[in-house]
Amino acid sequence: MNVLLTNDDGILSPGINKLADILKGSYNVVVVAPDRERSAVGHAITMHKPLRIKKIKDEENLKIFHANGTPSDCVKLGIDVVMKDKPDIIVSGINDGFNLGTDILYSGTVSAAMEGSINGFSSIAISLEAGSDITDKALLFIKKLIKSVAKNGLPKNALLNVNIPNISDNYSGVKITKLGYRNYVENFTRRIDPHGREYYWLAGKVLENINEEDSDIVAVKNGFISITPIQFDLTMYNLIDTLKKWDIQI
Amino acid sequence: MNVLLTNDDGILSPGINKLADILKGSYNVVVVAPDRERSAVGHAITMHKPLRIKKIKDEENLKIFHANGTPSDCVKLGIDVVMKDKPDIIVSGINDGFNLGTDILYSGTVSAAMEGSINGFSSIAISLEAGSDITDKALLFIKKLIKSVAKNGLPKNALLNVNIPNISDNYSGVKITKLGYRNYVENFTRRIDPHGREYYWLAGKVLENINEEDSDIVAVKNGFISITPIQFDLTMYNLIDTLKKWDIQI
Repeated sequence: MNVLLTNDDGILSPGINKLADILKGSYNVVVVAPDRERSAVGHAITMHKPLRIKKIKDEENLKIFHANGTPSDCVKLGIDVVMKDKPDIIVSGINDGFNLGTDILYSGTVSAAMEGSINGFSSIAISLEAGSDITDKALLFIKKLIKSVAKNGLPKNALLNVNIPNISDNYSGVKITKLGYRNYVENFTRRIDPHGREYYWLAGKVLENINEEDSDIVAVKNGFISITPIQFDLTMYNLIDTLKKWDIQI
Repeated sequence: MNVLLTNDDGILSPGINKLADILKGSYNVVVVAPDRERSAVGHAITMHKPLRIKKIKDEENLKIFHANGTPSDCVKLGIDVVMKDKPDIIVSGINDGFNLGTDILYSGTVSAAMEGSINGFSSIAISLEAGSDITDKALLFIKKLIKSVAKNGLPKNALLNVNIPNISDNYSGVKITKLGYRNYVENFTRRIDPHGREYYWLAGKVLENINEEDSDIVAVKNGFISITPIQFDLTMYNLIDTLKKWDIQI
């Protein structure tokens, strides 16, 4: 089985390298990751400057490349340029820090998996609580999940968003969840630079008191590994009939 | 009524300036747009460098600002830093070029409207066929749509994605649609630079023969203005029960 790995923390991050190391025992692993951190880039792609790609490892079951593009660029490059045999599964991560609720819209990690899904491949985004160790238990779970995805498949248009809390302390199990909602307040910090000009840091505070028991946000708080099925068809089908009644013809 | 305008083509683009000019007759208009083109940035936000914002016009019903951030940053800055009274509606556009089907995931235009929606405001993304004139008819439609959104409201979690074909020739009406699927082939063009090193341009060819009559892609092809209701909750609810049966507990 061929596995394509990418991330948004960049090729030097421990998450992707540990994952590649444990998966190469069972699969043909190809890594194509950004040459530097590309967090919070959302689903950006690079159309207006040339993309370059460089091979830095070439073992039997593990090839590693880095590219000067975004996570989504890396998935496209992996599928179309690097891999002769198409991937059976695409994994994005392990990200250093959760990707939960509405925040996934900003996430390079999740967008890379979504790019895989758009292109017709079973795809998973995996994120770990910031600062926690990548434990053997977490790696065991990831291997089990990859096996399940390979066995059961995923519907066209679906991908999985996985968040793993620090399960060394307090582990409750694996939970299938819906996306929660992350509300931010006091989004900007205003400062004055040494030249007397104002500037702003984007750094809001999260308000999370509105989320339900079956959301990803509450699940990880309660020590569960969260798996949320997500889709790339954003159509809000149940609003179509309402809109048809609006007076908007010209 | 307060209208916040932004775009991803940047502050100098004709689309946003024509829209601001016709809307200032009826509304208090505040423009916060990127200081340069930021197309295909998806839902990127700027967390790791300072944001700066500059006022360049201050008329009674029209204030114009530009910022060094992405379209989503501009929406956040508009809501939290620039506007004392919150916007009643947020409009992103008029983009130079369609944002259709799965391509909206890469779109700064649509992501800016989505950012508005996440923050609880009625939001619309508007795109025009590349290279077509911004006709009086198109502007008339946009004014009518904004009035309808103000009157009817939009559900929490919903926004509208609007695509206007070149309606000077061949106009069929306004159609409520679902998102189509844009499939690309031959995604990369390989070249060799003057120093002998290879590089790639991302520039796939669109394959669109798989789309249905009620999709946005087919609607604009047939001369309709397309309005697609979209949502930012990406949970694929109908997959939750299936996943609960998988053997993935550890």
